[in-house]
Amino acid sequence: MFKAQLALKSNPEAITLVSLTDTVVFGGQDIVMIGGPCAVESLAQMEAVANGLSLAPVQALRGGAFKPRTSPHSFQGLGLEGLKILAEVKRRYGIPVVTEVMSTEQIEAVATYADMLQVGSRNMQNFELLKALGHVNKPILLKRGLAATLEEFIGAAEYILSHGNTQVVLCERGIRSFDNYTRNVLDLGAVVALKQLTCLPVIVDPSHAAGRRELIAPLAKAAIAAGADGLIIECHPQPEKSVSDAAQALSLEEMVSLVHSLQPIAQAIGRSIVPFSRSLIAA
Amino acid sequence: MFKAQLALKSNPEAITLVSLTDTVVFGGQDIVMIGGPCAVESLAQMEAVANGLSLAPVQALRGGAFKPRTSPHSFQGLGLEGLKILAEVKRRYGIPVVTEVMSTEQIEAVATYADMLQVGSRNMQNFELLKALGHVNKPILLKRGLAATLEEFIGAAEYILSHGNTQVVLCERGIRSFDNYTRNVLDLGAVVALKQLTCLPVIVDPSHAAGRRELIAPLAKAAIAAGADGLIIECHPQPEKSVSDAAQALSLEEMVSLVHSLQPIAQAIGRSIVPFSRSLIAA
Amino acid sequence: MFKAQLALKSNPEAITLVSLTDTVVFGGQDIVMIGGPCAVESLAQMEAVANGLSLAPVQALRGGAFKPRTSPHSFQGLGLEGLKILAEVKRRYGIPVVTEVMSTEQIEAVATYADMLQVGSRNMQNFELLKALGHVNKPILLKRGLAATLEEFIGAAEYILSHGNTQVVLCERGIRSFDNYTRNVLDLGAVVALKQLTCLPVIVDPSHAAGRRELIAPLAKAAIAAGADGLIIECHPQPEKSVSDAAQALSLEEMVSLVHSLQPIAQAIGRSIVPFSRSLIAA
Amino acid sequence: MFKAQLALKSNPEAITLVSLTDTVVFGGQDIVMIGGPCAVESLAQMEAVANGLSLAPVQALRGGAFKPRTSPHSFQGLGLEGLKILAEVKRRYGIPVVTEVMSTEQIEAVATYADMLQVGSRNMQNFELLKALGHVNKPILLKRGLAATLEEFIGAAEYILSHGNTQVVLCERGIRSFDNYTRNVLDLGAVVALKQLTCLPVIVDPSHAAGRRELIAPLAKAAIAAGADGLIIECHPQPEKSVSDAAQALSLEEMVSLVHSLQPIAQAIGRSIVPFSRSLIAA
Repeated sequence: MFKAQLALKSNPEAITLVSLTDTVVFGGQDIVMIGGPCAVESLAQMEAVANGLSLAPVQALRGGAFKPRTSPHSFQGLGLEGLKILAEVKRRYGIPVVTEVMSTEQIEAVATYADMLQVGSRNMQNFELLKALGHVNKPILLKRGLAATLEEFIGAAEYILSHGNTQVVLCERGIRSFDNYTRNVLDLGAVVALKQLTCLPVIVDPSHAAGRRELIAPLAKAAIAAGADGLIIECHPQPEKSVSDAAQALSLEEMVSLVHSLQPIAQAIGRSIVPFSRSLIAA
Repeated sequence: MFKAQLALKSNPEAITLVSLTDTVVFGGQDIVMIGGPCAVESLAQMEAVANGLSLAPVQALRGGAFKPRTSPHSFQGLGLEGLKILAEVKRRYGIPVVTEVMSTEQIEAVATYADMLQVGSRNMQNFELLKALGHVNKPILLKRGLAATLEEFIGAAEYILSHGNTQVVLCERGIRSFDNYTRNVLDLGAVVALKQLTCLPVIVDPSHAAGRRELIAPLAKAAIAAGADGLIIECHPQPEKSVSDAAQALSLEEMVSLVHSLQPIAQAIGRSIVPFSRSLIAA
Repeated sequence: MFKAQLALKSNPEAITLVSLTDTVVFGGQDIVMIGGPCAVESLAQMEAVANGLSLAPVQALRGGAFKPRTSPHSFQGLGLEGLKILAEVKRRYGIPVVTEVMSTEQIEAVATYADMLQVGSRNMQNFELLKALGHVNKPILLKRGLAATLEEFIGAAEYILSHGNTQVVLCERGIRSFDNYTRNVLDLGAVVALKQLTCLPVIVDPSHAAGRRELIAPLAKAAIAAGADGLIIECHPQPEKSVSDAAQALSLEEMVSLVHSLQPIAQAIGRSIVPFSRSLIAA
Repeated sequence: MFKAQLALKSNPEAITLVSLTDTVVFGGQDIVMIGGPCAVESLAQMEAVANGLSLAPVQALRGGAFKPRTSPHSFQGLGLEGLKILAEVKRRYGIPVVTEVMSTEQIEAVATYADMLQVGSRNMQNFELLKALGHVNKPILLKRGLAATLEEFIGAAEYILSHGNTQVVLCERGIRSFDNYTRNVLDLGAVVALKQLTCLPVIVDPSHAAGRRELIAPLAKAAIAAGADGLIIECHPQPEKSVSDAAQALSLEEMVSLVHSLQPIAQAIGRSIVPFSRSLIAA
C-alpha cells in the first residue's frame, strides 16, 4: 500500500532506536519526555525552565529559535541568538535540546547548536528540506502535517531515510478538524498504526493537539497508554506571559506534576520514564 | 458558550451516576465494559458470545436488532426477533443488554426488552427521537454524530435531559476525517473535554473509531487512561463471518484478553474494572 | 461502487423529472428557484415574502415550521401553526411551498399543508423517516448530511425510492470543514458527480453553505454554471430581525436582484429560469 | 480579523493587476487560461501541447520540472532539463510558461527560464521560500495548502508581499475532506471570499480539486461564474500515458473544447476570455 521501503517494518519486531544522547534513546523500553516553551524568549527564561524541570524526569528541552508564524507581522523567533541560548542552557544544565529548522539554509546553524532538529508540521512536505536533513548527522523529529495522511507522513520520513539519515522520530501533534473547541484533534489511532507499520519511534505532542492546558494531562496519559515512545509538551515559567501559544503552555509546576503522574501508566504497560540524572549526561 | 443547562456541570465535582443495574453503574469509580457483535444474528451466536465472555470482566452485552445501514439493500437487522434473542440471553446469563433504537415507533419494543437504549451516530440530531427518549425510564447511550461538534453533542444530550430522562451516557466513537487508513479518528480530546464540561458519564467505542481490529487494544487502553467511564467493543464468535463490520470485530478470546489487559491501566489512574459476577446480578 | 439501484442512472441520459406543480418541474430545462425565510415567524412575515418575490422568477416558497435546533432551549418553530400559515400564503398567492419534516409523526400534517417535504441534513440518515416518506405521494427534498459521502447520500435517496416514492430531489448545502470563515464548504464537485451518477435532480442551497450573505450571489451563479437544477435561498423581509440564521438571509430586494442576475448564466449553459406567473398556477 | 496589511483590500475596489506578459494580465476584465501537463516529460510532449492548444484561447502553459511527490521513489521531475524544455517551447511558440519552485536553491534557475513561479500546496507555509520569492522580479502563483484556512492563505501571500514582490496570484485547488470520490473539494466560497477580502487576483485549479476528468468542465464553468480571474487545467497529448495524475488530465481536444465552452459563462458575468494571438506576443 505505501510506497516506502526504509520506513516500513521489514518484520513485526523491527524497530530503529534513535539516540538523542548516550542515555536518552527513543524507541526502547524507556519513554522520553521533552519539555519547554513554544519560543526561546531569553536566557533567563530558558534557565528558569531548565531549573524548574531539573529534578523531574524530563530528558530534553524544547524551544523555538526560528518560529513559523501565520503572519509575517508576528514574532518570528530570536533566530541565531535563540540557538545560542539553547546551547548555553545545554552547557550549564547538561540537558540535550531540540529545536525547529525551517529551511536548508538554517540546517548548519541548527545542527551546530542543537541535539535534535525538528521539522514542523508546515514543512512536513518541504521535500528539499527533508532531503538535506538526510545528510545531517543528528536525529530528526518529524512532525505530522496538519492534514497529512499516514501515507504522506511515512513518505516524508522516507525522504530523510533514503538520503542517508536513519535517525528519525515521528511526532503526532493533532490533525485539523471541524470543531474548534480543541485546536486540533489528537489522532492516537495514527500513533498505534505508525508503531505497527513503521520501524521508527513515535512520540506525541498533546499541547498543540489540545490547545488548552486543562486537556493536556489526560491526553498525555492516553498517549503513553497507546504506546507512544515519548511526549513533547509546552511549559513556561509564566505561561500567561508566553509570546506565543499561551493558552496551551503548562506552568513548570504543572509540568513536573504531570510527568510524575505518567509513571504509573508507563509501568502499567511495562515501560518506564527514567528520572533525568544530570550527572549521567554531564559526566 | 454552550446553550445547555442540565447537561453542563453545575460545579466541578458534579457527576450523574447512570445505573444499568444495581451493580453496574456508569460514572463512578468502576469502569464499565460492554461487548458483543455488531448485529444480533441468531440465538446461538448471542449465546456463544455470552458464554465466551462469562468469566471476563464484561458487565453488559451489545448487539443490534435494528441496524442503520447506508443502503436499504443491506441487512437491516432481525428487528423484533433480535430483541427477543437479546432478552433470552439476558434471562439465561443474567447480563444486561444494550441495543439501538432508530425511531420513536421502536421505543416501546426496545425499552421492553433491553436495559439501555442506544441512539446511533446517524440519529444524534434526530430531535424527535431524543425528545421521546426523554420520557423513557431506561438509561440512554447517546453516540456522537460523525461530524458533531461538542456543542451539538451536548445539545443533543440536553434534548433528552430536558424532557425528563437524566440517565444519559455519552459515547465518543470516532469522527470523520480525511485519512481512510482508519475508519474514523478517535477523538480522546473530546472525551476529556466532555468529562470536564458535562455531568454525564462518557464512554468510548474504539471499534467503530478504528475499523481495524489490530488497533483496538491500544486505543482501549488510551481511552481508559484519558478518563473514559467505560468501553463498548465489538466482538464475535467468528469475526470473519460477521454479517457487518467484520474487519473491526475481535474474536471472543481477543476480547477477554483485551479486557484483562486494561485492568493495570485502570489501576494506574485509581480506578478499576470489576469482574462480572453472575451471581451478584442473578441474585 | 454504490449499493443503490433505483437512484443510479440506468443510462447516461436517464433523468427523473420531479414535479412540484404542473408547471414547476425539477430536472428539466428550466431551473427552479425557491426562496423564503429560515423559519415561518408569522402570517405577516410570510405574506411580506410572497409579496416581495411576486414579480421575480421564484417558483416556490420555503419556510420552516418545525425547526431542528442544536439546543432544545432555542426557538423550535411554530409547528402546526406554521404549516397553516404556509398553506394560507399558498392559497392567497398561488405559489407552492416547501417545508421540513422531522419525524414520521409529522408526515401527515406536513403532507397535508405543503407541496414538497424537506428532509434536513441532520435527518439524512434517519432511515425510518426515509422509509415512511417512501409511502408519501408528494415530492421530497433530501438535503445532504453535514459530513455525508456521496455513497451515503445516494443510499439515503435509495431508501425513499425503494419504498415507493420516486419523486426525490437532492440538495447540496455545504459540508463541514476546518475553516470557520464560511459556515460550511459548498461542494459543487458533488453536484456535478451526483448529476452524472444519479437520475435525480440536484439543487443547491448556497445560504447554508456560505452562512454569510455577501457570498451567496456568486455561489448561486457558480451552482447554476455547474449544472444545478435549482436553488433554495434564504431571504427575509427584515434579515436583521430573523429569529434564526440572520447572517445568511438576503433582503427581499437582494433576492429579487440575485434571481434576475442568474438568468444570463442559465442561458449561457442553454437553460432558463422561467418567470413565475401567478395566473398559470392559480388557474 | 486577519493579521495582514498588504494583501487585504484597502478599499472595496482595490485590485492588484498581475502581469504575466504585456498582454496577459490577471485581475482585469479578461480571464486567463493556463493549460498543460502535470509534469514536463519531453520536448516532444511539450511541443505537442503547445501545438494542440495553439488556436485555443489559452494564454500560458504549465508543466512541472520539479515535482513534489509523496514518495521519494516516485518520478521527481526532469529538473533543470525540464526548465530548458519549457524555455524552448516558449521561444518557439511565443507563449509564457508557469512552473513550480520547491526551494530557495531552485529560485534562480526557475526565474531564469519561467515567466511565473508557482508555489505548490505543500509549500504554502514554507516561509523561507515565501520570503525569498519576495525578492524575485517575477509574478508568483501561490496555491492554497491542502487544509489551509483563509487566514493562513492570506498570511502566506503577505509573506511574499511584505518582502517586496507585490505580483502574487492566489490559486484555490481543492481542500482535503472526508469523501474520496473526488480527490479534494473545490472551495469556491473561498474564491468569493478571497476576491472580497484581498486585492490579489484569484484563479482556480479544477483538475487537482476534482481528480477526475469528467468533473472538470462543469467545475471550470462554476469557477468562472463565481468570479475567478483565471483557470489552470491539466491536459496531456496522451492522458493515459501521463507519468502522474493521469486520471485528471484532459486530452488536448477536450481542453480546447472546454476553453471554448467557457466563453459564454465569462460573457454572462461581463468578462471575456481573450483568444491567444501568437503574433501579439511574438512581436
